[in-house]
Amino acid sequence: MNNFELNNPTKIVFGSDSMGKIAELIRPFGNKVLLTYGGGSIKKNGIYEKVIKQLNDFEVKEFGGIEPNPRVETIRKAREEFKRFEPDFILAVGGGSVIDGTKLLASSMYYLGDPWDFLIKNDVEPEKYIPFGVVLTLSATGSEMNNGSVITNWENHEKLFFGREQTYPIFSILDPQNTFSVPKDQTAYGIIDAFSHVLEQYMVNSKNTPLQDRFSEGILLTLIENSKSVLENPNDYVSRANIMFSACMALNNLISSGTNQDWATHNIEHEISAFYDIPHAAGLAVITPRWMDAIKENKKEKLIQYGKRIWNLTGEDNQIIEKAISSTSDFFKSLGVKMSLSEWDIDSKNFDLIVKRLAEKGIGETPLSAEQISKILMNCL
Amino acid sequence: MNNFELNNPTKIVFGSDSMGKIAELIRPFGNKVLLTYGGGSIKKNGIYEKVIKQLNDFEVKEFGGIEPNPRVETIRKAREEFKRFEPDFILAVGGGSVIDGTKLLASSMYYLGDPWDFLIKNDVEPEKYIPFGVVLTLSATGSEMNNGSVITNWENHEKLFFGREQTYPIFSILDPQNTFSVPKDQTAYGIIDAFSHVLEQYMVNSKNTPLQDRFSEGILLTLIENSKSVLENPNDYVSRANIMFSACMALNNLISSGTNQDWATHNIEHEISAFYDIPHAAGLAVITPRWMDAIKENKKEKLIQYGKRIWNLTGEDNQIIEKAISSTSDFFKSLGVKMSLSEWDIDSKNFDLIVKRLAEKGIGETPLSAEQISKILMNCL
Repeated sequence: MNNFELNNPTKIVFGSDSMGKIAELIRPFGNKVLLTYGGGSIKKNGIYEKVIKQLNDFEVKEFGGIEPNPRVETIRKAREEFKRFEPDFILAVGGGSVIDGTKLLASSMYYLGDPWDFLIKNDVEPEKYIPFGVVLTLSATGSEMNNGSVITNWENHEKLFFGREQTYPIFSILDPQNTFSVPKDQTAYGIIDAFSHVLEQYMVNSKNTPLQDRFSEGILLTLIENSKSVLENPNDYVSRANIMFSACMALNNLISSGTNQDWATHNIEHEISAFYDIPHAAGLAVITPRWMDAIKENKKEKLIQYGKRIWNLTGEDNQIIEKAISSTSDFFKSLGVKMSLSEWDIDSKNFDLIVKRLAEKGIGETPLSAEQISKILMNCL
Repeated sequence: MNNFELNNPTKIVFGSDSMGKIAELIRPFGNKVLLTYGGGSIKKNGIYEKVIKQLNDFEVKEFGGIEPNPRVETIRKAREEFKRFEPDFILAVGGGSVIDGTKLLASSMYYLGDPWDFLIKNDVEPEKYIPFGVVLTLSATGSEMNNGSVITNWENHEKLFFGREQTYPIFSILDPQNTFSVPKDQTAYGIIDAFSHVLEQYMVNSKNTPLQDRFSEGILLTLIENSKSVLENPNDYVSRANIMFSACMALNNLISSGTNQDWATHNIEHEISAFYDIPHAAGLAVITPRWMDAIKENKKEKLIQYGKRIWNLTGEDNQIIEKAISSTSDFFKSLGVKMSLSEWDIDSKNFDLIVKRLAEKGIGETPLSAEQISKILMNCL
């Protein structure tokens, strides 16, 4: 087990009665609330109305239009528009993209330079960070209980990560009912995203982390066991709740306590979706089995444990490994997602640049070579 | 899954380099530090020296002598002695008893009434709570990452619980090396205490908490798998680390998220040790299998799951249940602890009073009847 620090200040308010607590949770921070959301689905499914009703006693302004794979351009726009409003609190209503975008907005509102600085410079310090909370409408990224944010710069096709001590949500409202109207494909992507988050922290060569391993395996099994029921019946509270709790626990510092991490799959996917605007988890689904194949010698022991404990595999080590990889692929396929980049009309045109960028950056627990990255990408076509 | 809130502000600093961070962790709170500890073992094993070295730049006073099953009398004494010192911060160096005692001291230093009020009144509000941190020297109670405290009033043989939002440690230093010198019996008690904490939150009839169940099972399995090695080799860093992390996770609000809870075993034990000053977990070891026997019809389904997943049992349901109970008992026995109250020279003299108190209070997920409690106690003799 590696040395580690574990501290997560976000308050999770989970369940069917959690929406009623919004006002009391915001009140300590002031009266002026900026509401942020995405493409407007919350206006169709009734969540917007419910939130607004809770904010009766506040002065509210709103910024809609934070897109999937949120862009720095959008955050620049929001900042210009609401700087003078001087919000006391920002309430993000949405999934990971809205939350990630809000993290950058909350960080950069009182910063004189460009918001993109937070992604590329180490010494950026705003005058203050605006506290923010979340009403989660999509189980996927875990952004509701961590301080990370992934932002895209479409001009130069960069998709980068930032996080600060101050970018944990103050609270996150997790009402499984708010995910009932999430369409089938987005539900599947959410499950795959959470599944991949676990793999990034679990499929490593850290020794002697039996509890962390079992926590990870618990999340993987819960995601698998609840996926069929939620796709068949989107209003199944129990499955929605189990997936919501699992996705939250998949990326909140818990399972990475004292372990190595990998993140090669996410890094490759960020490059793909910085060039082609495909859903993040659509990329993850395609890349994950090819990545597993690439690291199967290096991470042999963990792949066998994964095969045995997640997929109940028995037999020779090498058989278990191959079957573990194909079981992962079959699971994603069973959720109805595309399993190759060509199905997304993506060809190898930008691969050379992507490989160069990633190899220079160094990705993976044991950094992958340019050849390995190239092979993963080619196998994804 | 029940509705729940999850929020734990304590910062865990885990590992072999964590002691070096004490000064920087305390500094934001001020210069005057009150050091609290127990019977003085930290002066023999070198931990005291290491802590004092870290506090070179602070004004330090110390209060030793917080006993196992910490008593309100002791906290009253500490309060009188250090009120005028007006500490900015309290650093508890010890196990659960020292931490629990420190929680009451930190709460009652600026309270005009008697410290015991915190245990028996609901409307107690001190002028302020003193922030405190922990250097953990014993893996057991989880008090290092929760806000609970159990205090004994020896005058009237009461052992009660309290907790406030403000009684979470600011930080807890978890260096497995600080537990190397814990004797065999105390090590065993620590494992049993953590094991019992999990059972209190896991052995319940909550439906649809698959992830919480697997988190709990992960802790139980890790405790079991690391117990033999740690008893054989007390300086085994890996086993000490796994047990330390497990005990911490066993009672930090995580596994109880959205589940019912039981706590009958702990309630019975608190009565026993309020009359007879035996180690808390010595009582738990004796009571747990008898409690399991008493609730085996009511919690059938969970006992079977426990038997299958923890003890790899197969066969008829009733066989699994009986074997699950005896496996639990055998496990405790294998740690070298006494498995009956008579071995502790405890007879049934006070049982009537204990049964009356507990039946009035109502203990257990489904409250146990006086007859059930009485039977559990008699079976413990």
